[in-house]
Amino acid sequence: MASEHTAKAFDSDLQDLTRLVSEMGGLAERLIVDSVDALVRRDVALGQKVVAADAEVDKLQRIIEERAVLTIARRQPMAVDLREIVGAMRVATDLERIGDLAKNIGKRVAALESDFHPLKLIRGLEHMTDLVQSQVKTVLDAYAAHDLPAAMTVWKGDEEVDAICTSLFRELLTYMMEDPRNISFCIHLMFCAKNIERIGDHATNIAETVFYMIEGQQIMDKRPKGDMTSFAATIPGN
Amino acid sequence: MASEHTAKAFDSDLQDLTRLVSEMGGLAERLIVDSVDALVRRDVALGQKVVAADAEVDKLQRIIEERAVLTIARRQPMAVDLREIVGAMRVATDLERIGDLAKNIGKRVAALESDFHPLKLIRGLEHMTDLVQSQVKTVLDAYAAHDLPAAMTVWKGDEEVDAICTSLFRELLTYMMEDPRNISFCIHLMFCAKNIERIGDHATNIAETVFYMIEGQQIMDKRPKGDMTSFAATIPGN
Repeated sequence: MASEHTAKAFDSDLQDLTRLVSEMGGLAERLIVDSVDALVRRDVALGQKVVAADAEVDKLQRIIEERAVLTIARRQPMAVDLREIVGAMRVATDLERIGDLAKNIGKRVAALESDFHPLKLIRGLEHMTDLVQSQVKTVLDAYAAHDLPAAMTVWKGDEEVDAICTSLFRELLTYMMEDPRNISFCIHLMFCAKNIERIGDHATNIAETVFYMIEGQQIMDKRPKGDMTSFAATIPGN
Repeated sequence: MASEHTAKAFDSDLQDLTRLVSEMGGLAERLIVDSVDALVRRDVALGQKVVAADAEVDKLQRIIEERAVLTIARRQPMAVDLREIVGAMRVATDLERIGDLAKNIGKRVAALESDFHPLKLIRGLEHMTDLVQSQVKTVLDAYAAHDLPAAMTVWKGDEEVDAICTSLFRELLTYMMEDPRNISFCIHLMFCAKNIERIGDHATNIAETVFYMIEGQQIMDKRPKGDMTSFAATIPGN
């Protein structure tokens, strides 16, 4: 960037962007917690609130994208500065997807009419959500602080979430086999668990973005994967 | 853009980008077809091919993103030219998600060990896939040709896909209630059907991007929604 003036203008643009991403991240975290709270407590109104609030997340993504593109066009940043802007856009894309997944959980609350309320499953889902939400929080903090080691912890920690999801799927299948009246309820929980697991995947995507911003290249290692839910459904069929 | 030279350089950059998006689109279409083919014919090797090929889709997205950002920084395009570049990035994001969803179907092929093979369901899934694949093709053509009416047809046509998905879900539930041995198989088909439906959602996202590129604003109408799969699972529970 040519002048000191441009450099200052860029810094100010970048600060705005980072602030917007942080606002969007806070909102997405809220939606994760609220959607699963709504599910656990069968709180239809809270579920609908999540569905409505997702529009705000979508709007923030559009704003971040527009600001990012304008900043690139106006300030012509190079190298590390450019990566900062691209990083903000990528994180916003992941947060938008997280919002969608929480919204889908929120939608399902209204559909849960059964009296069936297996506490062990609900606790499992809550535990998984706690883990994922803490990963989202940690990785957003790592993004804001440019803390690569913290981001890498999240990147490696996704395995545990996947393992819990797989074990939840197995249990849900058992309940379904035991009593067909549980099937409809259990399918909803399966889709919700899968959504939470996917939110965890987006947290690892954000960790990869932090790596890219700091190291200037895409991460190449294979991430450890504990997700066997594509296979878990076969077990009772054997 | 200042000079004729810059204008020409921009046009050439944009052509490169459009060509890359078209290549990525062709690949994503192929993955949709192959993944469902693999599922219907229980072709595990083809399923694995889809899983492997998704890495190519991911790679193309990164390339498109990097090229787009470099073009914005170098050529400083304004207004309609800037929207072309942002449009390419957005379409690439949707195509990357389509690849992921096809990959997830490909993964499930190896897990289908049951002998249960309900022809009516399989035909329903194939029909839904044909519709969605044709929507993806139409909207990518509309993107390449800047054909707004064609894009809007796709945008409005998603309702039929959602309705088929809902009816598939109802049938799958019936099979599951009838015989617990069908449960595992049916759950896989449910996740696959949901993935196809989501691919349809991405086709409508691309239609919205075409609208944005041509009209210079976000589409505001509410899209017609026929998706009731969040609710379909309640029916047998009533």
